[in-house]
Amino acid sequence: MMDDDLASRPCSWLSPQGPESDVVLSTRVRLARNLGDWRMPWRLSAEEKSDLYDLIAGKLEDAAPVPDASMERIDQLPGLKRDVLVERHVISRELAQGDGARGVLFSRSEDSSVMALEEDHLRLQAIRRGLQLESTWRAVDLLDDALEDVFDYAVSEEFGYLTACPTNVGTGLRVSVMTHLPTLVETGQIPKVKTAASRVGLVLRGFRGEGSKSQGDFFQISNQVTFGKSEEDIIRLVQSMAGKIVEWERGVRRLLVEQDRTAVENRVWRAWGALQHARIMSSEEAMEKLSLIRLGVNTKLLVHLTLGDLNELFLYIQPGHIRTLTGAGEEPRDRDEMRARFIRQYLADRAR
Amino acid sequence: MMDDDLASRPCSWLSPQGPESDVVLSTRVRLARNLGDWRMPWRLSAEEKSDLYDLIAGKLEDAAPVPDASMERIDQLPGLKRDVLVERHVISRELAQGDGARGVLFSRSEDSSVMALEEDHLRLQAIRRGLQLESTWRAVDLLDDALEDVFDYAVSEEFGYLTACPTNVGTGLRVSVMTHLPTLVETGQIPKVKTAASRVGLVLRGFRGEGSKSQGDFFQISNQVTFGKSEEDIIRLVQSMAGKIVEWERGVRRLLVEQDRTAVENRVWRAWGALQHARIMSSEEAMEKLSLIRLGVNTKLLVHLTLGDLNELFLYIQPGHIRTLTGAGEEPRDRDEMRARFIRQYLADRAR
Repeated sequence: MMDDDLASRPCSWLSPQGPESDVVLSTRVRLARNLGDWRMPWRLSAEEKSDLYDLIAGKLEDAAPVPDASMERIDQLPGLKRDVLVERHVISRELAQGDGARGVLFSRSEDSSVMALEEDHLRLQAIRRGLQLESTWRAVDLLDDALEDVFDYAVSEEFGYLTACPTNVGTGLRVSVMTHLPTLVETGQIPKVKTAASRVGLVLRGFRGEGSKSQGDFFQISNQVTFGKSEEDIIRLVQSMAGKIVEWERGVRRLLVEQDRTAVENRVWRAWGALQHARIMSSEEAMEKLSLIRLGVNTKLLVHLTLGDLNELFLYIQPGHIRTLTGAGEEPRDRDEMRARFIRQYLADRAR
Repeated sequence: MMDDDLASRPCSWLSPQGPESDVVLSTRVRLARNLGDWRMPWRLSAEEKSDLYDLIAGKLEDAAPVPDASMERIDQLPGLKRDVLVERHVISRELAQGDGARGVLFSRSEDSSVMALEEDHLRLQAIRRGLQLESTWRAVDLLDDALEDVFDYAVSEEFGYLTACPTNVGTGLRVSVMTHLPTLVETGQIPKVKTAASRVGLVLRGFRGEGSKSQGDFFQISNQVTFGKSEEDIIRLVQSMAGKIVEWERGVRRLLVEQDRTAVENRVWRAWGALQHARIMSSEEAMEKLSLIRLGVNTKLLVHLTLGDLNELFLYIQPGHIRTLTGAGEEPRDRDEMRARFIRQYLADRAR
C-alpha cells in the first residue's frame, strides 16, 4: 500500500551517486507484455477489466517478483496520490488517467514496478540512478523472467511480443535516459542532438515524455523502434548515444565557463536569487531555475547545494508533491505560493 | 573646483527627508537668462564664446551669488567628470556635450548652480529634496536677483526675458518635479496622468528629461509654457498637479497591496534577489529593480534598506558614478559587472 509519507521521501533512483550523474539523472527500461488469453485492454468491458485485474493482482501477489512490493489499485486512489506516483515515475500518466480497474505493483524502493491494465495488460519497469543501461536492463529482464513463469504471454513467432500499440511490437522494450542539457540548449544545439539521435533510430523528447515540451533543459533520450533489433542491440545503442550526448554537454559546459565565466555565474546566481526570494513560482519556472542551479553546482560556480539536494527539490516542486507536502489547494496560484515558500524554507534549512 | 570625492557623496537634494518623499524625489526650478549686449550662444564664434565666458566667470566669482561656490570650466573637464556632474543634475547633458568655452558655478551642497553658455548665456538652477516648489522657487529667485545686479539681462517689454529657444521666452522658467510612479505604471495609468497634465499645460516626461524614455518608473512633471503666465502661477500649477499625482500614486499603491499583497511582495523580493546576486547588471535594469525596492520600502513590505540608501544607490549606479567609484572601464560590459559587484557590496554592508 502507498504509505502517507511517500511524497516526503527522495526517490532512490534520483540519488546523485549514479554514473555520469552530472548530466544523466536516471535510466529507465520498460517492457510491454500482454496475456495470450485476453483481448487487449482497450477492447475489454469494464467487467472484464475488473475480472482480469483481480486475476493479474492475485498472480502478482503470489509470484512476488518485486521484493516487499504490494499492489495499489489506481482507480480507487484519490487524484492527488495518483499525481504523486506519476511524478515519482512509479506509474505513467496514462495509468493515472485511464478507465476502469487498473493498478501497480511497487515496493518502497520504487526502483521496479509492474503496471496492470495500462495500454497493455502488463508494463514492467526498472529505473536506476545515473546512466546504467546494462544493470537496469538486467533488472527488468529478471522481472520479466519471473512473470513469464506465471503469465501466458501473447507472443508471435513472426513479430515477437504482441502489444496494444504497434509501435511496441517485437521486443516491447522502451529505454529512456533522462538527461540535463542546459548548455546544449543555450548554444542552440538541441536540434543537432535530435538529428544525431534520429539518425540511429532514437528520439530526444521533453522531460514529460512523448509530445511534451522540455522543461528546465531536461530531455529524455529513448528508442523509437522495438521491432527488428534485439534487446541487447537497443540497450547498446542507447548507451552509446547517451554517452556521446554526455560528452557533448560536458564539453560545452567547460567551453562556456572558460569563455565567459561571469556570464554563466550571472545566470546561475540570478536563478539562486529568484529561488531564495520569489513569493509565487510555477513548477515550470522552478524547473528552469533548478536547471541553472544544477549547472552551477556541476561547474562548481555554486556550492550551497549538492546534486542530492537538487534532485530532491526537482521531485518535491512538482504539483502533486507540493500539494501533499504543504497542504496547498488545487488552485495553481495557491500551489505557486506554497511552492515558493517551500523552496525558500528548503534553501534556508540547507544554508544553516 | 570639482573635488575628487564628489562621486562618492550623496546629493543633499536626494535626501529622503523631503516632503512627500515616498513619491517625489526632488524639485528643480530653472531660469533661462541672456545678456542684452551679446548674441545668443549658438551665434557666437569660438573666440567670442571664450571672451564671454571669461566675462561671465569673472562677474560670477565677484558677485558670489552662491555661498562657497566656484566655477568649473566644463570644456576643460574630462568626459567622465562631466558625466558625474550630469548624473548629479549639477549640469545639463547639453552643457556636458556642447561646444566651446562653457562652465558652471556650483557649491559643495549642489543645491544651486549657474550654467554659463549652455543654450542660453545663463541658466540658474535650484534643486531641493522632495516636493517643495515654493522654497525652491524662492532660492532661484534670490539667485536671479543677485545676478540681475551684475548682468544686463535681455528683456523685452512685450515678451519678457528673451531666450535662445522660443519655448523659454517670457518667464524663462522651467519647473520639474521628479516623481516615482511604479503602481501607476503597473496599472497602465500613465497615459491618463499625461492627459491630465497636458490639459493644464504641463508635461510628464521620462527620468532623463525631454525625449527620454522613463526608466524604472521615474517621471518628471514640468511646465510646457513659460509665456503668458506669471512665475507664481506656474509654481502653483505644478504644485497642485504634483500633489494630485502623489495622491493618485499613493492610492493605487494601497489598493494593490490590499488586493494582492503577495503579488507585490513577489515582485519586490525578486528584485531584491536580482540585486543581491546578479553578476552583470545594466543601469536600466538596476533602475527597474531599485524602483521595485523603493515600492517595497514605501509599502513596508521590505525593511532592509531605507529611502536614503535607495537614493544613494539610485545615484551611484549611473554609468559615470560607477566608473568613478569602481574604476570600471568604458566598455558597457565592464561597467555592468562592476555595477553588479558594487550593488552586492552595498547591500551586504547594509545587512551587517
